[in-house]
Amino acid sequence: MKHSKPSISIVGAGPGDPDLLTIKGLRALQSANAVLYDALANPKLLEYAPANAVKVFVGKRAGLHSYNQEEINLLMVQYAYKLGHVVRLKGGDPFVFGRGYEEMNYAKAFDIPVTVVPGISSSIAVPQSQHVPLTHRGLSESFWVVTATTRSANFSKDVNLAAQSSATVIVLMGIGKLAKITSAYRDLGKGDLPVLIVQNGTLPEEKAVVGTIDSIESKAGHAKIGTPGIIVIGRTVSLHPSFIQEVIEVQRTWK
Amino acid sequence: MKHSKPSISIVGAGPGDPDLLTIKGLRALQSANAVLYDALANPKLLEYAPANAVKVFVGKRAGLHSYNQEEINLLMVQYAYKLGHVVRLKGGDPFVFGRGYEEMNYAKAFDIPVTVVPGISSSIAVPQSQHVPLTHRGLSESFWVVTATTRSANFSKDVNLAAQSSATVIVLMGIGKLAKITSAYRDLGKGDLPVLIVQNGTLPEEKAVVGTIDSIESKAGHAKIGTPGIIVIGRTVSLHPSFIQEVIEVQRTWK
Repeated sequence: MKHSKPSISIVGAGPGDPDLLTIKGLRALQSANAVLYDALANPKLLEYAPANAVKVFVGKRAGLHSYNQEEINLLMVQYAYKLGHVVRLKGGDPFVFGRGYEEMNYAKAFDIPVTVVPGISSSIAVPQSQHVPLTHRGLSESFWVVTATTRSANFSKDVNLAAQSSATVIVLMGIGKLAKITSAYRDLGKGDLPVLIVQNGTLPEEKAVVGTIDSIESKAGHAKIGTPGIIVIGRTVSLHPSFIQEVIEVQRTWK
Repeated sequence: MKHSKPSISIVGAGPGDPDLLTIKGLRALQSANAVLYDALANPKLLEYAPANAVKVFVGKRAGLHSYNQEEINLLMVQYAYKLGHVVRLKGGDPFVFGRGYEEMNYAKAFDIPVTVVPGISSSIAVPQSQHVPLTHRGLSESFWVVTATTRSANFSKDVNLAAQSSATVIVLMGIGKLAKITSAYRDLGKGDLPVLIVQNGTLPEEKAVVGTIDSIESKAGHAKIGTPGIIVIGRTVSLHPSFIQEVIEVQRTWK
């Protein structure tokens, strides 16, 4: 393998569909000497890297050793010094709940040139894959992306403010907190607000369920929607093709 | 020109840098018989389309006839019937303040197969281009994307809720309402919250200014930052390389 100067590209792999990688990301992979990739990055993308490039899975997956952030940072820098161009391939976008900033800073501290290549964020592309726009005149003029994985008190506070707003709210990694989220909306009398949950968005196995704040929990249960899933809450979800069906069902229960 | 079956791809061109187009968007352009493109889509992308494809500028630019949404919809469908595969190339992402949903629906009503190809949204990629993450542990756990172009009352209400939250707030097309936005934050005692304004993000002529809620208006004035510009408000802006300088300047004025 040709030894080249150390450099690091932190590349967003996009939401799942490998064709949603950017041209810039593709070029980075084509010139990689080593690729460190996540569980959420589509492994098909590794085929763009040279056959003799080192490919290391650094994500979390049951039964395998999982690397912590310090180990990933170190590995990235070690491979850069040893082999040359390292691509750190991350699901979605590296700067959206991705710790890409921390990785960039770590590499900078070693004076290694770093390029950050944005990726299509699931928060935008997954609702779109279900034909639901994040904004739409007369329905919603903003969107708010939150994650439900943090333990901080800000989550409850922010979800509460979000529920008061007219924003379309997208919750990443939030399936486990669905009850808490719907209850914040119900407290504000917004039980009939439309909700969409999508699992494996933009992939062939994409699965979705549509309901309202009041009905979504039981619907998600019946549909056996699991992780990784995205929750979309707001009036633009009413534009989803199957939402009409949901409305008919709700009206039936009124009679 | 080979006559093919009508089809329409609504493609996100990304934030400016032509290499931030997706592979899927590239393939759509390569098989286009006609391309209808916006002011915000980089015209270099037209080179990917076949030389004999029809290319029509449908954006708004001073001194030129600008097409309204109805004319664009109609043109899209007419070209699809006449020539085959039409690519509707839009700046950023088609479903983020992009009216891509309306265009998709219009085409569907004519039974023309439509594909929506997401694009890298400026709301995410432009702060990143300035090395500012939208979320960062301990600083911000969510982000809110708003536009300031609407005349509705929701804008003031939502900006007020946003200012109360811990979200990083990204305002698209908001340079003209900077005073209104900063005043909402100042009313909540958040005058020292960091703010970043970026013009022409991800392009060679990218220009940025960093300040606080209290200082950003005069700083943007001095730096002559204009449109198209993006405003980023929140604690993660303090990670911007030149924010340290701003802090030093502020402390100097205290003495």
